[in-house]
Formats: sequence, structure tokens, C-alpha cells
Amino acid sequence: MIIIGEKINATKKGVSNAIAERDEAFIAALAISQAEAGAHVIDVNAGTGRGDTKQAAEDMAWLIGVVEKAVSLPVAVDTETPEVLEAALSAVTGPFAWINSVSAEKTRLEKVLPLAKKYGCPVIALCMGDDGIPKNAEGRMKAARIIYERAISLRIEPERLYFDPLVMPIGAEQDAGAMALECIRLIKAELSGANTVCGLSNVSFGLPMRPLVNRAFLVLCAGAGLDAAILDPLDDTLLMELYAALALLGKDRRCMNFIRAFRKRSKKGGKP
Amino acid sequence: MIIIGEKINATKKGVSNAIAERDEAFIAALAISQAEAGAHVIDVNAGTGRGDTKQAAEDMAWLIGVVEKAVSLPVAVDTETPEVLEAALSAVTGPFAWINSVSAEKTRLEKVLPLAKKYGCPVIALCMGDDGIPKNAEGRMKAARIIYERAISLRIEPERLYFDPLVMPIGAEQDAGAMALECIRLIKAELSGANTVCGLSNVSFGLPMRPLVNRAFLVLCAGAGLDAAILDPLDDTLLMELYAALALLGKDRRCMNFIRAFRKRSKKGGKP
Repeated sequence: MIIIGEKINATKKGVSNAIAERDEAFIAALAISQAEAGAHVIDVNAGTGRGDTKQAAEDMAWLIGVVEKAVSLPVAVDTETPEVLEAALSAVTGPFAWINSVSAEKTRLEKVLPLAKKYGCPVIALCMGDDGIPKNAEGRMKAARIIYERAISLRIEPERLYFDPLVMPIGAEQDAGAMALECIRLIKAELSGANTVCGLSNVSFGLPMRPLVNRAFLVLCAGAGLDAAILDPLDDTLLMELYAALALLGKDRRCMNFIRAFRKRSKKGGKP
Repeated sequence: MIIIGEKINATKKGVSNAIAERDEAFIAALAISQAEAGAHVIDVNAGTGRGDTKQAAEDMAWLIGVVEKAVSLPVAVDTETPEVLEAALSAVTGPFAWINSVSAEKTRLEKVLPLAKKYGCPVIALCMGDDGIPKNAEGRMKAARIIYERAISLRIEPERLYFDPLVMPIGAEQDAGAMALECIRLIKAELSGANTVCGLSNVSFGLPMRPLVNRAFLVLCAGAGLDAAILDPLDDTLLMELYAALALLGKDRRCMNFIRAFRKRSKKGGKP
């Protein structure tokens, strides 16, 4: 399971301040702590540049520079704006950056996928189109198929696509969790070679004990075959439970990842 | 998901003492606390009567009497000895008792299943035969089929059978968890009407953070369609995570069970 660390996101106040003030130490610390906690990819979301695309692109380039200096992990360029994305990808000097995200919306599909081809990026692909997020699994699969076919026609290897079923809060829609799990299974069964990815926190919106609900959802997703997750790697219990789930699924040789993570945690003084 | 409370078990020291000293208050308190925590069935294991079948039967009858006086839940009569089982079943006055357990071992199969028919009991059926626990899913399914066919021939409704795949420690056998999950799926797909049940603690034997590993396993089992679990209902985090998983699987209308359990927990002063 590929862990994409979500902490460097301008929707979080400390981060938006750090971007505005060019506080390199703050951002670098967030990158390093996520890398040490087990993240494989560092998501970077620079916000909207207060509505100014040029500002947003500058902010993103600065963020990526700081993260690349701090850790030797790929970044995931998290933006809805193709212009910001292209500026960011041309600024990357380290390992292949991830694109977060494309969708089946016409303009994003046409502008973003060629960038994935040009820069050789793994791409997070949202299962939605121009009409928004489809209500059922069928609609999401339809969006996924549009992206998949377009990627194939551009000769992008399907292994580089990470489809996100876009889970909604179960507090509002009772079947939202089951539907996301069904989409994960369908994508893996029907879109040969393609991977799946999911964010966690949305599913628990409005409920009590959100970290516990998110944990249970991550374990269920792992059971359904999820390949990557966007999450907070500093949530120690979440990570340990993910490692436990992978060991229980037979995906951890001799439980060594789980035991290694436990030992690292014990050294830091985590509860046994 | 049916929760079978495992706390009244003579392999635990306090319980064996309470049985020897006929300490009714101790046993009653264990029954009541499990019922209040959400158990639907109370497992009762009286031990071996120090090797004396008559003593074991007396102990079991006493235990059942105490539990039936304390709570209005069915007991699960947990014994390997058909004579103890029959004495116990004839002593039950409350709702249908569960039988824990039958297997495909010849003598158990022939002596226990007719008791299930006679007393109308739900039965936990271990996926093993006279050669012990089969190494692979195929062998366990073979044992399950033998029990299933014998039950059908006795006109026991398959809905009353709860097959236990018998999970082994993943620390010793890397694929043990995945195999148990596969068995749960196969039983539900192939043995029409039959249910599944699982104990939790075995899977984490030898590993650190056992409660967390058990929790992850329960969530994975729920995702695979598990119908009942033998567990410690006083493990608050385990239960809340189970309720979260069921809500995430769309099996909890408006998340009401989860929210109710959360409120009950908050009243008791549990961490939010």
C-alpha cells in the first residue's frame, strides 16, 4: 500500500500561513515528519493563490522546492488548475511527481492526461465527470472508463492510473462506504492494470469518533484491494492498524513491516 | 453481526476459581457486564471438571443456571464432550442455547448434530475433521461440506449453522488471515443459507499490539461477510470499531447503532 501524506495542504491554517510567509522550516518539518512516519509520497496543495493563478503557481513551485530539499520522496501535485499543474511539474527536479488529480471532466481530461504522459507521472483519477460526482457505482465506473480509455489512447500505462472512488459521508448517505468499496473491487476487476486510491476523512464527516471510523474504513479498503491511501501518516494508530491489516491479508512477509513499525513506535515512546 | 461474549471461560483463572467455589456473584457480574456491553449470546465454558465428565456436567449446569438467572440472553454451551453438552442442553430453561461446537470429526458429528436437531440450537461448526485442522482453504471447505450435508440430512436448517474457519496465528503462518477470510467468502458463496463465525484472539498470537491486530481482523472479517464473532465485548474500542465497520458496510440504518453505542460509551465516561 502506497501512503500519500496529506499534511501539506493550504486548507489547513498553519500551512497557508507558512506559504504566505515563505516559512521553509515549517513546511520542511511537515515533510520530514511524514517521511519518517512511513509516507511514500508527499501531497502538496498550495491553495488558490487567493484566486490568482500566477500566484498559485509560484506558491506551488516554492512548496515543491522546499519539500524536495527536505526529503527524497516524490511529491503529489494537488491542484485543480492545469496551468498550476504544468508549472509545478516543470519545476520538479526529484523523482517522478504524482498528479492529483484528473477526472472525466472534459477540460481536465484533455489538459491533464497529456501532462501525465509528457512527465511520466502516476495520476490520481477521480471517478466523476462534468455532471459532478455520480450517485451510484455504475456512474462512477462510467467516469473511470472514460479516463482509462483516454489514458490508453495516449499510451499511458494503466499501472500509472490510481482511481479514487470519491467516498461521501456515511452519516448523510448510508450506502456511501459500501459503494466506495464496491467501486474499488470493480475497478480492480474491470480496468486491467489500473490501481485504486482513496482519501479517508470524508467518510466520517458528521459522525463522532472520526479517527476510529476512518481507521475501520482504511482496513475495509485494504481488504477490498486498495493500492494507495491519502492520509495523515502522523496518526500512529491509523498506520499501525493499516500495517496490521496488510499482515492479516498476507501482504507482509513474516509480518516484518508491522513488527518494524511497532519497534520504531516503541522507541519513540508510543504506548505498546 | 451477532456478538458472542467470551468472558465466562474456565481457562481464565478468575472464572475457574469462581466455578470451584460456586461464586455466583462473580459469574453473574460477568454475564451482566457483557450483556450491557452489547453481547447477544453468552459463551459458557466450564472446563473439564478436572478430567471428570460428571463433574464437568455439574459445573456446566451450575454455570448455565447462574447466567440464565442474571441475563435473558441465550448461552453458547462451549464443550468438546457430547455428554456434557447433552446434560447442559437439558438444563437450559431460557431461549435456545447455542452449541459450541461440532466439527467433521466422526464422533462429534454423530453425537452433536442430533442434539442440535433435538433442542433446536444454532451450532458453531469448526472446519476440521479427524485429521486435525486442514492446512488450506480447500481442506477446510471439505470439512465444512461434510457437516453441512450431514445437517441437511438431519433436516437442520442451514441458517442455524455457523461455520468457523479456525484462523491460525499470522505470526507463524503468513497466509493464515487471508485464508480465513477466503473461507468466510467461500462458505457464504457455496453453502447456501449457512452463516460464518470467528474467534479473534488466535490470529494475533505472538505479535505485539494484539488488541489492535484483533480489531483489524474483525473489521476485515466484517468486510468479508462474517455473521457472528466470539470476542470480548468489554473491549470498548473493539466494539466501537466493529459498529463503525458495519455502518461503513451499509449495514447500520442511519448509523444509529454506532451513534447509540457512542452515546452509551460517553455516559460511562469513555474517551470521545
